[in-house]
Amino acid sequence: MKIVVINKMLKPKHRDRITEIACRIGAEVCFTETENDLPSGFESPDIVYGFGVNIARTQKSLQWLCVPSAGVDYLMRPGTFANEDCLLSNSSGAYGVTIAEHMIAVTLVMMRRLTEVFGETSHGVWGSPRAQRSIKDSRVTVLGTGDIGSCFARRARAFEPERIIGVNRSGVCNDPSYDRVVSVDALDEILPETDLLAMSLPSTPQTRDILSRERIALLPKGAYIVNVGRGSAIDEDALADSLESGHLGGAALDVFRTEPLPQDSRLWKTKGLLITPHVAGNLTLEHTLDTNVAMFCEDLENFAEGRPLRYAVDRSRGY
Amino acid sequence: MKIVVINKMLKPKHRDRITEIACRIGAEVCFTETENDLPSGFESPDIVYGFGVNIARTQKSLQWLCVPSAGVDYLMRPGTFANEDCLLSNSSGAYGVTIAEHMIAVTLVMMRRLTEVFGETSHGVWGSPRAQRSIKDSRVTVLGTGDIGSCFARRARAFEPERIIGVNRSGVCNDPSYDRVVSVDALDEILPETDLLAMSLPSTPQTRDILSRERIALLPKGAYIVNVGRGSAIDEDALADSLESGHLGGAALDVFRTEPLPQDSRLWKTKGLLITPHVAGNLTLEHTLDTNVAMFCEDLENFAEGRPLRYAVDRSRGY
Repeated sequence: MKIVVINKMLKPKHRDRITEIACRIGAEVCFTETENDLPSGFESPDIVYGFGVNIARTQKSLQWLCVPSAGVDYLMRPGTFANEDCLLSNSSGAYGVTIAEHMIAVTLVMMRRLTEVFGETSHGVWGSPRAQRSIKDSRVTVLGTGDIGSCFARRARAFEPERIIGVNRSGVCNDPSYDRVVSVDALDEILPETDLLAMSLPSTPQTRDILSRERIALLPKGAYIVNVGRGSAIDEDALADSLESGHLGGAALDVFRTEPLPQDSRLWKTKGLLITPHVAGNLTLEHTLDTNVAMFCEDLENFAEGRPLRYAVDRSRGY
Repeated sequence: MKIVVINKMLKPKHRDRITEIACRIGAEVCFTETENDLPSGFESPDIVYGFGVNIARTQKSLQWLCVPSAGVDYLMRPGTFANEDCLLSNSSGAYGVTIAEHMIAVTLVMMRRLTEVFGETSHGVWGSPRAQRSIKDSRVTVLGTGDIGSCFARRARAFEPERIIGVNRSGVCNDPSYDRVVSVDALDEILPETDLLAMSLPSTPQTRDILSRERIALLPKGAYIVNVGRGSAIDEDALADSLESGHLGGAALDVFRTEPLPQDSRLWKTKGLLITPHVAGNLTLEHTLDTNVAMFCEDLENFAEGRPLRYAVDRSRGY
């Protein structure tokens, strides 16, 4: 059995751990920084841990692709896998901590108008206090109650919001961080009572364009939006219109319909829009990388023993 | 009995509430934006709620000064009160929520290097992920376990730090947000094991220069400092040296030895230093103003009934 691990961020401790398990299960493993330059003998691997999209598309040998991302929308198109029975797992669960910290950070930066403050002090200007808002007593709605949304809700809870409502497909979620969880069918009733809308949805046919122009208009004046899921969930033009009209209080987007955001996008210049270049979740934080590798290792043992993968993607749901 | 309220931020609901209590206790109240322009008949008030420093210094009639700030160091000099028996209360307890949000915000901005990210995206640049740090698994030390420090600890707790140690004069604090509370005598043992030092101390003879050059050097490489108490607590030159040498990972100062920070201060240009112009706690947040007024109203009833003031300052401690 041949395993290809594609990840330039790995540290010796991560390689050692993977190698140790590979050794135990009688597999050979190679580590590489890109799928386009595989060592001799590893051109047709059984297992790939990494962004091995080209390998998946061309190698019928592939039995399992484990991607280090949470989102897998880019793997849902027909023809993605030469072996139609290839297993697919993701790393949903590794990013909750880092993305939730990003969400709290950009929420507070917007509410406390810190980019304006830093814009002054970085130019030697001692400014005056500004009107500001707070998570305290805010009505928070979390659209998407997976690992990321719930990690955010857990942290937001400590800031004493008026309430946190989770919104998902089923209307069911056992995480105690929410005061209430409702089905997405109730979204239009929740939006008018939402001061902060935190979006952490996968990209699926059901989530595309979910935050339409009409729904943005349902939010109360001064509401904030944070999106860390996928850009396809939001009508970006309607969002920009709402910000420029002064209806929304602010928005922080880490994800966009097209990435990198095109140079001629109006979003670059939209007032009240905080842009980050899809960096809320990445492997630069040691905790994230450690968790990511640990999840692959857990499933590598599952795979070797013939057990189901714990982090398998449900292809019918698309996440 | 004459009450002067000096506060340009008050809303009708706040004036109504104060007027209602004044009426009930048989007092007259006037509202003004500055102590230098008092209405006729209120030149020698019995009670002042606001920054009435000149009134306190000149009017022997003054029986109680309630300041809307938490810090009262500027009232500790001899000669501040014409009436030496004048009661003094502060508004410690009103600022915990807003200042704690500031502390979490600047901590995450530093750890996630968001000023660099926003510096790029505000100029249309789609940057790459950076090395970053996290509150998760960090060793947090809170120097000053009053309302502000404990509100911060409660929020920081939700980010799953390795531990939170509180440091205060007595080594005693019942707030469950701390894993452990130690006396300031143990500070030198705690600093080498501190990734994030959050400082929320009043300015007293005991706290002045508490974070000396030697103590800054005790912090491990890459540690962060946040100070929202008083600037007098830190050797600012040593802090700048440590940041410039690359020892400290970053610092966020909202308070300075001289405010506004002088134009020729080296701090304006110190790399890794996040400056905010003493805005972590102010009355622009409605929750803060509401709490501030509610605290005065509570003590106004106490005063009228001859009960001790709940928010009285202990002049022997200086806070």
